[in-house]
Parts: sequence; structure tokens; C-alpha cells
Amino acid sequence: MSTLCRAPSWQRRGFSLKYILFTPKPPTRAFSTSPRGPGLRSLELDEPRLKKLKVNQSRLMDELHHTCQWGTGERWGEQGTETGMRRLSLSDADKQARDWFVDATKALGCNISVDAMGNTFAVRPGRAQGAPTFAGSHLDTQPSGGRYDGILGILAGVEMLRVLQENRVETAFPIGVVNWTNEEGARFPISMMSSGVWAGDIPIGHAYALQEVGGGTATVKSELERIGYLGILPASYEAMPMAAHFELHIEQGPILEKEEQKIGIVKGVQAYRWYTVEVIGQEAHTGTTPFGSRADALLAASRMICASHTAAADHGALASTGILTLSPGSVNTIPGKVKFSLDIRAPSDNIIDKLEKHLKSDFDSIVSTESTKALPLSVTWQTDSISPAIHFHKDCIAAVRASANSVLGDEALSREMVSGAGHDSVYASRRCPTSMIFVPSRDGISHNPKEYTSPGDCAIGAEVLLQSVLRYDGLRSNVGN
Amino acid sequence: MSTLCRAPSWQRRGFSLKYILFTPKPPTRAFSTSPRGPGLRSLELDEPRLKKLKVNQSRLMDELHHTCQWGTGERWGEQGTETGMRRLSLSDADKQARDWFVDATKALGCNISVDAMGNTFAVRPGRAQGAPTFAGSHLDTQPSGGRYDGILGILAGVEMLRVLQENRVETAFPIGVVNWTNEEGARFPISMMSSGVWAGDIPIGHAYALQEVGGGTATVKSELERIGYLGILPASYEAMPMAAHFELHIEQGPILEKEEQKIGIVKGVQAYRWYTVEVIGQEAHTGTTPFGSRADALLAASRMICASHTAAADHGALASTGILTLSPGSVNTIPGKVKFSLDIRAPSDNIIDKLEKHLKSDFDSIVSTESTKALPLSVTWQTDSISPAIHFHKDCIAAVRASANSVLGDEALSREMVSGAGHDSVYASRRCPTSMIFVPSRDGISHNPKEYTSPGDCAIGAEVLLQSVLRYDGLRSNVGN
Repeated sequence: MSTLCRAPSWQRRGFSLKYILFTPKPPTRAFSTSPRGPGLRSLELDEPRLKKLKVNQSRLMDELHHTCQWGTGERWGEQGTETGMRRLSLSDADKQARDWFVDATKALGCNISVDAMGNTFAVRPGRAQGAPTFAGSHLDTQPSGGRYDGILGILAGVEMLRVLQENRVETAFPIGVVNWTNEEGARFPISMMSSGVWAGDIPIGHAYALQEVGGGTATVKSELERIGYLGILPASYEAMPMAAHFELHIEQGPILEKEEQKIGIVKGVQAYRWYTVEVIGQEAHTGTTPFGSRADALLAASRMICASHTAAADHGALASTGILTLSPGSVNTIPGKVKFSLDIRAPSDNIIDKLEKHLKSDFDSIVSTESTKALPLSVTWQTDSISPAIHFHKDCIAAVRASANSVLGDEALSREMVSGAGHDSVYASRRCPTSMIFVPSRDGISHNPKEYTSPGDCAIGAEVLLQSVLRYDGLRSNVGN
Repeated sequence: MSTLCRAPSWQRRGFSLKYILFTPKPPTRAFSTSPRGPGLRSLELDEPRLKKLKVNQSRLMDELHHTCQWGTGERWGEQGTETGMRRLSLSDADKQARDWFVDATKALGCNISVDAMGNTFAVRPGRAQGAPTFAGSHLDTQPSGGRYDGILGILAGVEMLRVLQENRVETAFPIGVVNWTNEEGARFPISMMSSGVWAGDIPIGHAYALQEVGGGTATVKSELERIGYLGILPASYEAMPMAAHFELHIEQGPILEKEEQKIGIVKGVQAYRWYTVEVIGQEAHTGTTPFGSRADALLAASRMICASHTAAADHGALASTGILTLSPGSVNTIPGKVKFSLDIRAPSDNIIDKLEKHLKSDFDSIVSTESTKALPLSVTWQTDSISPAIHFHKDCIAAVRASANSVLGDEALSREMVSGAGHDSVYASRRCPTSMIFVPSRDGISHNPKEYTSPGDCAIGAEVLLQSVLRYDGLRSNVGN
């Protein structure tokens, strides 16, 4: 069952989209309630007209910082906006931000639906019924996060709705903005949780039962109920189908800044695998044990960490170790056991497969080289997470590319990229055409109070998002779905 | 003021040794109170007679295991003696073991002195007054220690006294056994604490004020008082001079076992230095940060650990890292800070100097190679501990060598060694001629419940200790001091 509930009763069930999806021709009844008087139809939005649809940079930034009053985090500078964010999913601060999102989009003529995971869909009607083309991201943050990750994508979506309204644009099909619940996985430890439920990849019972980290007893379901965002719309791509999903996001890496480029045209998300590697040696006294009689688990682990970087570089991939623990942990005792995390990433699953094989062989060589006859070392691998490579849809990528070129006026100012991090677009892409738009992150920093993207870059990203959504709507209009 | 108190009032001050030290000729009054009837004088102990002085292996081992009833530790095997030890310094269990030591040595005709650090000196009179030749070690253990480290040295000393008694040996000068307080530094965190005070290298006020680790409020002084071992003899080499100090100890390493040898003739103790090395990089997302934009503190630290081993091996030295901590400690965040311990050891201070210089240069190269222009890495060194190389006395080493050859009958069964670990003999050697005797450690394991030396090897070691002390006494007798 799918539901679109009209303002002000956004919690009330409305009509079913289920039977009217992908109508082959524009229906006779249009949903053009918001544009007043004669406006532009997306079909009529040729290049010159698209270029005239300008994002209001001040309004965008003022509203972004306005929403950062809910869940303000650590201060890092003297300006009023120089604080980070701590807006954990389903917290009181998250509820306030969600309420703002509902009110703002309702005021822009949207119908609001909340699904059983609290995913909140604001849909602006088009001329024809049909699955909306969405801009989406998330309003929750890391406990020590910043003002841009996720937030910018939602605020740019709301700005898109404002630009459509003030220019009285009538789109072929509905246009939506979605705020996904618990993308960060910081308070409830599954990231991209609710887009995952929507996509059918994470069972809703599993998500509901998740307890908050840190020893509290709140669960996802109890908190959804508490803050009033346990919607009645099933959390499913069948109940809330999307024609496409576009996500504006900060890069969270240094490439755009380093290359002095403004837009990343995101072709997909790299594959990654997470492992825990355990090396077992033998504790021994550092002063009385010659090298030839040692089974030094930390020396072996150090060689493995070095080897993982060399091999990853050779494969055009990444390898990183973020956690390392050892025992017993005494200055004059050679560690007998070391555990470390290994995170490998590459643009394709094939490279990941090859790299994993290469590293298993390398690590085996290291333990056999380091082992003495009397004291063998051993290494074991545990696979903690597998995330295959995601390839976004060519039509969405083309829409982003055309939009970037239009907004920037210079192909050299954008580049194709593969996202290194996961986003809600990963799950969205499993059920609808998807792409993402990256804007520069200062110093490549994210998940940090100092995370920063300049107002100009935010506005450029928002304008590329706006154009991408309209171009995709125009494409559907041209092909009739 | 020095004090030797006679049994039973071993806490009462006796006569002062201060004015009768190192008398140039044998005095007329002999202290031969313990040997009954005609016995052997050490001067008369030629090789055949020395060889006849046999340690009683069963008695030695029975008594050693008897004393392990105080502070029994973790069980590791099914036999009654297959447990480790947990006899922390100045604990109730330590008091019980000390009481046994006092009673046992008093019963063997010794005068007992306890100094202000609880160091307990059992002295068997000789024909002449003068500083005693000591066998010494310690009865305290690590919290998860074994039955041999320290304990064997004391028990072999007591067995030595028994052999002297049953063979009615009259030595030229007094012979002593010393139980040093808190050699392990496990409960009160300075190792070789009270031999250090005796040697004048550790101020007594500093030692007294040490609090027990783990948050308790007991201090060294309060615990000495509580268990009744705060003696009135000043803790000083001037108050309790030693003619020589011999220490039997388990090797705590694998060399003797590996080489199928029975005795290590310990020529000295290697130099060591302890450092804390801190590497500062930049936290970044593992998925979004290309290798060229990283300042990975753990990768740099791993390269340093590998480099430290290579350089140490090149210098004939050792390098070990036993502690490593990093932050922030998340699978998908590149560590921005790593701290690790570095323990380097070598037979000479000169090699340590060269190795330190080499490593500082290596680590600087690593940070500059790993640094990107935008994100530099840095490394800082903190020196935590400096222990210069110790060279034992040639006369003591010669006594051990001659004794080992006599007991083993084959030069190939002993080897000269440098101790990798610190021992009370380090401080003793600063104030009197010193050497040590090592016996094999099974699998090189120590500071572990499974620490083990066979009864036969314990007895061989005890016999070499006995002979070494007698040979040294004979040497003094020959040269008249």
C-alpha cells in the first residue's frame, strides 16, 4: 500500500499510487496546484530557460543554518555558524528538524507521507500522476558531525521546491524531497538504515529492534513512536516508488578541492569489504628473547599493514586500518596477540576479489617468514561486512553531467567520481535510477565539527541538483513515463 | 650505622660492622659458631673437595615448592606443583615467605638483619669478620608469575647454607643470603626498588611514597610497617656492605634451552632505553581519501616498527614495541594519532647510542616520505627510561666459570651471556663485585604461571652458586680481604 497524504493531515492515508504507476501517457488530470497562473512546463525548459532558474544562495544558507539550531554541536570558530552538529537520529533535535521539514515543504504545496521507518516524503504534484523524481538525503548527523553532511542535500531539495514555486514551474511528473531516517548509523548502529528497509534489503523487524549505542534502552521503534514519526505508509519501494533519486552531498574527501573543481558527477559507489585480522604469536620478554626466538604478533601485523597499502596501491584500490588492539600491552613484553581492522575499497568487485586474494597470500607469507620453528605465528581473517560496487544509472549521470556543464559553463570544473562512502543513494539505486552530485569539502574533512563547504559551492551544488531533477523529469516527459 | 642482629632478636641492633670492614689479615677471633666439630675451611676446598659439596636436589625442590604455598597463583597443569605464583611485594603472602626465610636461616645459624627497605640479610659467620659474600635474589613475584623467577635464587641460597652446615664448612669470611624487597616492581611500580635504595641510586623517600598500582592507598612504607619488615638498619651499601653478590636466576629467554646448555655465565646486563614515540597525522574517511591525500599515523607507525627491527638486527641489538594505542579507533577512519612504546637493548651503551641515532633518522625519513604536502605527519620521541650497560666483575665471572666447569665437567655445556632483563645484581654491581648464574627456562617463558626449570637444572644452578660463593671466599682468603 502506498500513501500520499495531503497537508495538513500528513499522517492520514490518502489514495493509492499502486495502480497508477508509470502511466504510459500523460493523464488528463494534472496536479498543478502550487504554481499560480501561467508558468513554465518542464518540457519547455530548454537550456536558456533552465539556466535562468537560479538558486538563492543567501536563502539556502540562511535556512541551512536556521535548521542547525536543532542539535548544535561543538564550537570551532567565533562566527555564529562555526559550530558542529550533534543531531542523533530520532532524538528530540531530530524531531524538531523533521517538523521544520514537514512545515516548510507543506507550505510549498507538497503532500507529505511518513512511512513506517519515519522516512518522510514531501511530494510536489506534477501535471501527470506517477512516481516522483526525488532529491533525497538525511537530516541526522554524527555525534561529532558538521553542518553539511546530509543536511545540505535536504536543504538544497527544499530550495529546489522554492525555486520551482517562485518560477511557477509545472513539472511533467511529481517532484519529491525525501528525508531518510538514520543514514549515519551513529545512534542506532546500521548506517543507511531506512533507505535499506525501503529497498527491501534490511528487514524492518531487525531495524525496529536496534537499541541505541551507549547502553540506553531506546529502540528504533520506541523512538519513532515517541517523536511521532512512526508512519503508517509501509517502508517499501513498492509503497513509495521513485522514478529516480538524486542526492547532493559533500564529497567528504579532498579531490575536488585539490583539483580546483566544483562538481563531482558521481557514477557509483566503490565496493568495500571490512575484515578483522587476528595475528597470534607468543608473549615473551623483550630483553631476553633474541629475534630468532620470537613470534612477535605486532611486528607481523605491522608488516601486514604496510603490505596492504602496497598491494592496494598496485590494484588502484584503497586499504586502511583504523582499529588495532594488542595484548598483553606491556613495554617489555612482546605482544602475543594483535587484532586489527582492514577496510579495502575499489571501484569494482573484481578488483576487491583480486586484492583480497593478494592480501591473504601476502599475510600468509609474512607469518611464515616471521615464524620461528619453535614459535609459529598464525593469522586468521573474519569478514565483517561486504558492500558490492554500485553503478549509478546512465540517464541520471547524464542529467548531472549536463546540469554541471550548464551551471559551471566549463567542463573542466567538474569530474566524474566514484563515492568512497556509502549514502542513501546506494539503496535507492537498487530500486530506481540514481546518481549523486558532490561539492568540495574543505580539507576533505567530514564527520567533524569543522566540516565546511563554502556558500558558493553549496549554491552551485543546489543548482546542479535542481537542474538534474528537472532534466530527468523532462526526459520522462519526452519518453512518456 | 650497620647492624647485624643475632637470633632470636633479629630486630635488635647488634654490633657495628662499620669499623671492622675489610680487615687486611684474618682476625684472631673466628665466627665459626655453626659448623660443629672439625670441618672444612674454604682455604682447604681444593677442586676435589669442592666437587664433593653436593646440593640435595630433592630437598631444594621440596623446600622451593613448600614456600610456594604462600601466594599460589593460576593452575596450569594437574600436578600439585603445576601452578603459578601471585606473591606481590609486601603482601600477606610475601610476609609469610619472609617469615619462613628468617626462620630457616636462623635455624642454620645465621644472624638476620632487616633494613629500612625490608631487605633481609641472613649472614653465616666466617672465621674472620668482614663484609659477607652474598647470594641474593627476591621472593616476590609478578601478579601472574611463576615458581622460579627470584624464588630459585633465594632457595638455592638457603640450600647453600644447608650444605655448608651439613659439611661443617668454615668460610674465611661471612657468607650471606639476601632477600631484596620488590624486585618485580609489579605492586609498587619501580623494579629492583630496594637494591636500588641500598645502592644509593633510588632515594628512600621516593621509594617509601610509592603507592600500590590499581588504585589502592597502601604505600611501600605503610606496607613495610604493616607486615613488620620496616627494619632499623639503614638501607645502604655503607650500612650493609657486601664483599660480592652472586645471583642464580632463570634465564627468562630461550638461548640455553635452544643450545642445549645448562649454565649461563653472566658477564653483565645489556643496556636498554625505553621511549614513547608519538606519530601525528590527520583523521580522514577511509573511503573518500586517496592515498596521496592521507597522513596515516598508523601506516607511518607500522613502517617505524618494521624499521626498528631491521636497524636493531643490523646493530646486533634488540628493538620491541609492546604497547600501541591509536585514535580515534574506528574501522572507517584513518588514525590521526598513534603512540607506541619502543624498547631498545644492546650489550653496550655505544651500540644503543648508535641505534637511537639511526632510528631517529629512519623515523624522520618515514614521516617525510609518508607526508603529503597538504597534510604533514610528525613524530616526537619521549625518553622514559635509560639503563646503561652493566659489566660484572671479572673475579666473580671467573668464579662462576670455574664453578660451571667443575659442576658440568664440560665447557661446552655453559656459555657466557649478557642478561637481557634487569635484576637486583644490576644495583649490587654498582657497590660490590657481582656476577650471575643463569639456568634454562623452558620455552624461554617467564613472568607466566608456566615458567619452568627442571629439578636437575635447578640443582645444577644451585651447585654452581654454592661453588661460586666458596671460590670467591677462597679468593678473598688468599688475598687477605
